Amino acid sequence: MAARLIAAGHHVRAWNRSHQAVDDLAAKGALAVATPAEAADAEILCCMLADDAAIRTAILDAGVLESVKRGLVFANCSTISVAFVRELARRCAERGVGYIAAPVLGRPDAAADGKLHMLVAGSSADVERARPVLEVMAQKLWALGEEPECANAVKLAANFMIAATIEQIGEAMELAGAYGVEPTKFLAVITGTIFGSPAVANYGRAIAEQRFQPAGFALKLGAKDVRLTLAAAEEASLPMPVASLLRDRFIAAIARGDGELDWSAITKRR
Amino acid sequence: MAARLIAAGHHVRAWNRSHQAVDDLAAKGALAVATPAEAADAEILCCMLADDAAIRTAILDAGVLESVKRGLVFANCSTISVAFVRELARRCAERGVGYIAAPVLGRPDAAADGKLHMLVAGSSADVERARPVLEVMAQKLWALGEEPECANAVKLAANFMIAATIEQIGEAMELAGAYGVEPTKFLAVITGTIFGSPAVANYGRAIAEQRFQPAGFALKLGAKDVRLTLAAAEEASLPMPVASLLRDRFIAAIARGDGELDWSAITKRR
Amino acid sequence: MAARLIAAGHHVRAWNRSHQAVDDLAAKGALAVATPAEAADAEILCCMLADDAAIRTAILDAGVLESVKRGLVFANCSTISVAFVRELARRCAERGVGYIAAPVLGRPDAAADGKLHMLVAGSSADVERARPVLEVMAQKLWALGEEPECANAVKLAANFMIAATIEQIGEAMELAGAYGVEPTKFLAVITGTIFGSPAVANYGRAIAEQRFQPAGFALKLGAKDVRLTLAAAEEASLPMPVASLLRDRFIAAIARGDGELDWSAITKRR
Amino acid sequence: MAARLIAAGHHVRAWNRSHQAVDDLAAKGALAVATPAEAADAEILCCMLADDAAIRTAILDAGVLESVKRGLVFANCSTISVAFVRELARRCAERGVGYIAAPVLGRPDAAADGKLHMLVAGSSADVERARPVLEVMAQKLWALGEEPECANAVKLAANFMIAATIEQIGEAMELAGAYGVEPTKFLAVITGTIFGSPAVANYGRAIAEQRFQPAGFALKLGAKDVRLTLAAAEEASLPMPVASLLRDRFIAAIARGDGELDWSAITKRR
Repeated sequence: MAARLIAAGHHVRAWNRSHQAVDDLAAKGALAVATPAEAADAEILCCMLADDAAIRTAILDAGVLESVKRGLVFANCSTISVAFVRELARRCAERGVGYIAAPVLGRPDAAADGKLHMLVAGSSADVERARPVLEVMAQKLWALGEEPECANAVKLAANFMIAATIEQIGEAMELAGAYGVEPTKFLAVITGTIFGSPAVANYGRAIAEQRFQPAGFALKLGAKDVRLTLAAAEEASLPMPVASLLRDRFIAAIARGDGELDWSAITKRR
Repeated sequence: MAARLIAAGHHVRAWNRSHQAVDDLAAKGALAVATPAEAADAEILCCMLADDAAIRTAILDAGVLESVKRGLVFANCSTISVAFVRELARRCAERGVGYIAAPVLGRPDAAADGKLHMLVAGSSADVERARPVLEVMAQKLWALGEEPECANAVKLAANFMIAATIEQIGEAMELAGAYGVEPTKFLAVITGTIFGSPAVANYGRAIAEQRFQPAGFALKLGAKDVRLTLAAAEEASLPMPVASLLRDRFIAAIARGDGELDWSAITKRR
Repeated sequence: MAARLIAAGHHVRAWNRSHQAVDDLAAKGALAVATPAEAADAEILCCMLADDAAIRTAILDAGVLESVKRGLVFANCSTISVAFVRELARRCAERGVGYIAAPVLGRPDAAADGKLHMLVAGSSADVERARPVLEVMAQKLWALGEEPECANAVKLAANFMIAATIEQIGEAMELAGAYGVEPTKFLAVITGTIFGSPAVANYGRAIAEQRFQPAGFALKLGAKDVRLTLAAAEEASLPMPVASLLRDRFIAAIARGDGELDWSAITKRR
Repeated sequence: MAARLIAAGHHVRAWNRSHQAVDDLAAKGALAVATPAEAADAEILCCMLADDAAIRTAILDAGVLESVKRGLVFANCSTISVAFVRELARRCAERGVGYIAAPVLGRPDAAADGKLHMLVAGSSADVERARPVLEVMAQKLWALGEEPECANAVKLAANFMIAATIEQIGEAMELAGAYGVEPTKFLAVITGTIFGSPAVANYGRAIAEQRFQPAGFALKLGAKDVRLTLAAAEEASLPMPVASLLRDRFIAAIARGDGELDWSAITKRR
């Protein structure tokens, strides 16, 4: 995502916990900086970190919001809890910083090609200010309203749907296989009839081939997203029985040592 | 399906438990007959009945196999249990009747338009004899091998996937809705990004609008198919946790009086 | 159970699919007979067979009801489906045979010691006629009304409770174990506080010691009972989510080859 | 619990967020104090609060550990997360305060009668110092080792077993009821045969009578404990499918407005 910004001519100040990632961007033209606060000395702060804890450490505990200029727009692309979105938005507001939720759908290769879908929510004024930057990183912005948490809820719901689709294909393919139907044959039928979507096609192929490396999205991160989904649902007093079941599938997969595989490995055959 | 055969110039002998259905076909040019045995006095016997019991009554208990000509091909489009498929195939073989499993994917309007997908399994010779008839009723035949039960297993797996998709959309849409995202907005995001398939689009719209009538496929029949799916899986010592969960959802829906609604009504909001 | 009848001075005509069982009883004083019909030439017909299919073969298909004397009381101790109970009761009534459901709670050693609990339902007159025989086999008869299916429903519900208790102990014990609490220590706490019942004590010990042989009740029979439970519940439009989950646990256990172990082996640690 | 300490002649300094509770104890002879720190000015600090957050506020954020005398033993009877137990034990150790986990099994009436079971873990020296106080509050101390988290894990496992028992009885009783067996009759059978434990007897009666008030333990607190159980299990990479299912049952019950009823109300019939 940062590489696309550089390529589009934006001035990018790059910080990451991994030096390698920063060096790679510096080689492409970014200004490598040593702290999140220096990265935030900009018009738009884009952030893509793994979870609530990483952002709490890198942004809140590091005092970034205390040092930035009023008028900054913080476009947070990370998949985080709805509770934390609210806390971030409130603390940004206290500092005169605009907060936009901008999580994305798509795997790393889609990001490189500018094919991400971006789910955007926040005040219209902030979104408009960030739009020129966001549009470089995504093929489409989906406007989801003024409340940042709306975008996060949709992101969690979409990730839940991917995980549920993975599990669903796994069960169906095993059933067909138990009666002698080859996985790739089964996949051809479902994608060729009424289930032909990118999600079914891509994950279906991985499951049919039982090929879970390299990980497009690590299983342990998938487990985190299911946990966030259940937490968001519980806060709304909403039972999500399929999500509960997925949670157990992810935990069992981690217990057998598959946490670093692609999350489609919840369907790994024993 | 029968109307398409008539329109294509085939001689159709029509029987049904409901006289109205037979009369409608007779008006289009079919020969109405009084018994299944008379309908089976043909080159190809096509059958679309609700369940194992209906076929047992109409075909086996009525002695149809005892009266038909050797060489008949019985193309059974019904969604039935894999155990019963085996019994039917064996009893047909004893009488010199070819047995093809030919269940279909698609709702009544797809059938009227010849847009069904047909899952076909049986001996090649039998399939070739029936092909001219089957191709009139479907936009595509999916060849699934020599064993009739393969087609039934794929049909059950596909229906399981539809039911799982319904449940999945229902849970995801409720989560997004709990955070203020309109159902139709959520549906636009998922179909416009990575979940855009006919199954998600069609059922997603019904769920978003909470519109479960008229029933394209009755919830009580969906419950039956989940039951057949679990039975087929159990016979293969295969746990299908999502299918187990769906079973409970269907039973709860029937208990609250929704058995005649479309099966997407398992997501009906209370 | 039969040995206790012999010891109490009753004339017992013994038939079983396994000759060894019959020979053992003959050595104790029973009259070995060659067919179920000969065994049924008595005042009370007691039957303990594995499932619906076994009884259908041994009693109905063998024509036993056609040959017996009017006035016989058929006390069926087998755990069977409620649907089949109804069929048996109806067919007995047509032949002037009284039908009592008399399933038991207790494992083989309890049967040998006369410690079974017997769940009895049927017409009062039939129950009274059979009482002297039934009381020899059980420490207590629990009268559950005039409809035989009531006793079967309670038996299925009780077996469901055992299976659920097994699963529950397994999950709780693993959680405690994950935090360093020995299984036997954990078992002492739960039985010594508020969970001290024979079911928890007996199955808890087996689970703590991971000792699943010899099988007091084979896992594959437990799977059958869960299936009957779910079928009975479905007929009453009643979702039983824990039973659904148990079903998957039993199937997974059978898939890994544990069908002949004691049913507490659904908790076997991998 | 505090009333028993007073009655036994101990000097009790009482603090609570609810003034009424403190006044009641003062009337019995306790010294009412205005802050947790004043209450902790003692030899043994006993604490029974609702959850992690309440203790964080009352103890950690209020700076109690900074003001107490070295050598204090903190006996925490609250049901809290294992993660928080570790944090509390570590922070106590930094201040020279001994930390004992001492959660209890039993409802308010059992506490009043000194019939609680107390699960105790912590260093032997600390446990011995606190023993005279703890023994006044419980009928039995169960020693679970040197690591405080062991007692919390057992407490969570036991509460999970209660919740699972409630659900299990609810499903079984509904099944029997669907076939005409009265709930109290069914309860008599199960408690009179192999399920006769205090947990089954007490909760079984409430479920049979559908009497969920007054709440011995509020459903919303039960939901919290299931959440803590799942979190503890997830930390140990342990799937607990029955606990997952219970979570959904609690959430659904809260959604229909039953959060203040007794937790056995997850079985409330609609």
